[in-house]
Amino acid sequence: MKAKVYVTLKPSVLDPQGKAIHHSVELLGFKQIADVRQGKYFEIALDDSVSEAEAASSIEKIAREVLTNPIIEDYRVEIQT
Amino acid sequence: MKAKVYVTLKPSVLDPQGKAIHHSVELLGFKQIADVRQGKYFEIALDDSVSEAEAASSIEKIAREVLTNPIIEDYRVEIQT
Repeated sequence: MKAKVYVTLKPSVLDPQGKAIHHSVELLGFKQIADVRQGKYFEIALDDSVSEAEAASSIEKIAREVLTNPIIEDYRVEIQT
Repeated sequence: MKAKVYVTLKPSVLDPQGKAIHHSVELLGFKQIADVRQGKYFEIALDDSVSEAEAASSIEKIAREVLTNPIIEDYRVEIQT
C-alpha cells in the first residue's frame, strides 16, 4: 500500500521560496504566473500486511505529528491501495 | 487557473532525507512503514486570461526547466481549471 502526504504552508504564512521562484520564472519570460507556493510531498510505502484502516490512521498520525509543523503548515493525506 | 507540480527523486537516486524520516517514524513506534521518500510540491496560480493549452505548455516548461533537476528528478504536472 502507498500513501502520499502533501504539506503546504498555511495561506496566511509568507512563502519567500515561492516568491523567489515566481520572480525567477518572470525573469525567464513567463508573465502569466500570478503566484507560486512551495510545499513538501512525501511518498510512504507500507507493508502489505497492514489493513487500509490501520494504514489510514498511522499515516494521518505521522503526517500530523512528524511531517507537519501545525503552527504554519497544513497537510493532506491520500491512501492508494 | 491553478497548476500543481510534483517533483520526486528518480527511483534510482538515494534519498537520505526520506531515510532519516523513515528511521524517526520507526523510533516513534510506526513499524509497518516500508519506505519514505521526500519530494517537492508546487502550487502555481495563473492569470485567468490564460487559455488552458497555453497554461499547460508554460507550466510544463517551468516544471522541466526551473523546478526540476533532470539528472536526478522526475516531475508530474496537473492543471486545474
